[in-house]
Amino acid sequence: MTDPILLTPGPLTTRPATRQAMLRDWGSRDPAFVALTAELRARLLAVAQGEATHVCVPLQGSGTFIVEAAVATLVRPSDRLLVLVNGAYGERIAAIARRLGRPVAVLRWPEHRPVEPVEVAAALAADPGITHVALVHCETTTGLLNPLAEVAQAVAAAGRALLLDAMSSFGAIAIDLRAVPVTAVMASANKCLEGVPGIGFALVAREALARAAGVSPSLSLDLHEQWRGFEKDGQWRFTPPVQVVAALVEALRQLEAEGGPPARLARYRENLATLLAGMRRLGFEPYLDEAVQAPIIATFRVPTDRPFRFAAFYDALAARGFLVYPGKLTEAETFRIGCIGAVDRRDIERLLAAVAEVAGAAAAA
Amino acid sequence: MTDPILLTPGPLTTRPATRQAMLRDWGSRDPAFVALTAELRARLLAVAQGEATHVCVPLQGSGTFIVEAAVATLVRPSDRLLVLVNGAYGERIAAIARRLGRPVAVLRWPEHRPVEPVEVAAALAADPGITHVALVHCETTTGLLNPLAEVAQAVAAAGRALLLDAMSSFGAIAIDLRAVPVTAVMASANKCLEGVPGIGFALVAREALARAAGVSPSLSLDLHEQWRGFEKDGQWRFTPPVQVVAALVEALRQLEAEGGPPARLARYRENLATLLAGMRRLGFEPYLDEAVQAPIIATFRVPTDRPFRFAAFYDALAARGFLVYPGKLTEAETFRIGCIGAVDRRDIERLLAAVAEVAGAAAAA
Ligand SMILES: Cc1ncc(COP(=O)(O)O)c(C=O)c1O
Ligand SMILES: Cc1ncc(COP(=O)(O)O)c(C=O)c1O
Repeated sequence: MTDPILLTPGPLTTRPATRQAMLRDWGSRDPAFVALTAELRARLLAVAQGEATHVCVPLQGSGTFIVEAAVATLVRPSDRLLVLVNGAYGERIAAIARRLGRPVAVLRWPEHRPVEPVEVAAALAADPGITHVALVHCETTTGLLNPLAEVAQAVAAAGRALLLDAMSSFGAIAIDLRAVPVTAVMASANKCLEGVPGIGFALVAREALARAAGVSPSLSLDLHEQWRGFEKDGQWRFTPPVQVVAALVEALRQLEAEGGPPARLARYRENLATLLAGMRRLGFEPYLDEAVQAPIIATFRVPTDRPFRFAAFYDALAARGFLVYPGKLTEAETFRIGCIGAVDRRDIERLLAAVAEVAGAAAAA
Repeated sequence: MTDPILLTPGPLTTRPATRQAMLRDWGSRDPAFVALTAELRARLLAVAQGEATHVCVPLQGSGTFIVEAAVATLVRPSDRLLVLVNGAYGERIAAIARRLGRPVAVLRWPEHRPVEPVEVAAALAADPGITHVALVHCETTTGLLNPLAEVAQAVAAAGRALLLDAMSSFGAIAIDLRAVPVTAVMASANKCLEGVPGIGFALVAREALARAAGVSPSLSLDLHEQWRGFEKDGQWRFTPPVQVVAALVEALRQLEAEGGPPARLARYRENLATLLAGMRRLGFEPYLDEAVQAPIIATFRVPTDRPFRFAAFYDALAARGFLVYPGKLTEAETFRIGCIGAVDRRDIERLLAAVAEVAGAAAAA
């Protein structure tokens, strides 16, 4: 049995060298692992050019954990968070803040429409109590790319802090912290960085983090203390997933070898272009306008001109070695196919051949 | 370079087959991974004979995360938690509860003394406001084994709920949920189960968990919702560390093949006996009375009859392929050597030969 190709928003297909980096046991307080952690933190910071202004704080757990940790650590009970929502991951940030008892306001757009910087500026002008704004960079719900530079500009102009969920963009879509004002960028190992899941990380403006002692109501999800731990002796406060860390460091070395985020973005763009053209040819309509589509994951409408059951479609593709992804929209019946991971145009072409084969079968199901 | 042998409280030395189980990419919503998760949950529950009464809720993150999740989900703001403390991990539970804003009382014993069930019973009789009691099974700070059966008896007799941090005992030291009344047992992948770090889990009394909807102030660390997620479709709410899960399932299969927890305990006991006898012969005095020493990790006093620097001792042993562990006590200068992981008596004998070699060098340092 060969491994399936994962065309999902992660966990996704990794390179063999990344997985092989997990074959070793590491003492988590040993100098060798302390050095690995230092390399991890430095490489992650460098991906977004944050060396002069930000610090990197990795955290055990999934991507949701690092988003929650950033909100819990940076937004005080006396602050107010405005969440910009055009998909499920924006809604999740609002849910996290509400659970934590932080005052929350929400500005919503339809799932196929990007966040509007002008409306954000107006909302901030109207409500001086808002201290922080949260944006999802690529809304993985649909695959839509929100206008980071413009939103960051509006938030900075109003003197508020921006928290960016860059889970599904970090490592491919440029985030230049020298040019774009963002207080905290949150992402995880297992999307465009092509590592395995098990850790997230935040790049946090050093000054904001230094002021955040004792804010988090959670010991585990306290980014200030987690950072202090690294600064003290280079070690993790609590047991790190050593193999996951080793895999991510290996994946970051490979990112550099590939040519960094621009080269990775070019490969993903080619994957997306191949996918969209091929799926259209096979009669599948993309959900988003191409103008707002990120080269991360594409959403397709379930065809209405023939019978189609996603479960049968999924199984038939899985039997051919490709795992695709269900939809996450409420307003339209859709499914998703990812463009990220250690896959290239030829993999997408093989997928399209499989779709061509099974589209008839799915139609018949 | 061969891998070092880790004689630590984890991450520790795993078997090659456990690490090799990480060489595959899994789609986290694919039926194959759903089946792996079901096997994981069933095997973990079976280790403690909890099938009739408890449910298994795995959670991303380190051991501290699952302890915090259990406290956050099961102890309400109107409850009161009594923490039984004779080491750093007991203190950590109290710190977690305080951060969460839960009312906490603490009963303390010296680090070399076990928790006293009679004193626990008296404290519960004196304070009817206490609803929950937290106990650390094996206090990894020293390696001391607390009297679980007697404490559980006292807590149940007083009609309170017991939360057990079994991080460093689960999988080796018997916990029979049919016989011992415990509301929640928390542990992690990377100690006596001999998996790799990255997930913890709780075995929670089904009725207590069913009543705990909406209690946790944390979305990520909500065991009730995490459980509901598994019950709904067998999937994890948020991206699971798929390779860590695969490694733990493989490690659990190997636990069964070894003969289950009794066989593992026998191996660890032999490791401990070999270690204690050998270290005594080399002039190192164990910190604990043998009567309270668990076969998990041993604490040794830093010798006072000769110059000794732990850093030099550590480095010299590391150069010979053995990683030992610093002490965690405030009251005495100590270091620790673990007995757990995929190591047996011959590894301990080789360690002792290395200690004999370097004890002179450390003395000279
Ligand atoms: C934009 C975004 N935010 C947050 C998350 C949550 O990450 P996780 O599933 O690792 O908790 C995801 C996962 O797909 C995501 O795409
Ligand atoms: C008894 C006990 N509780 C909690 C923990 C915390 O686990 P982690 O370091 O995985 O967060 C440990 C770790 O050694 C432990 O031994």
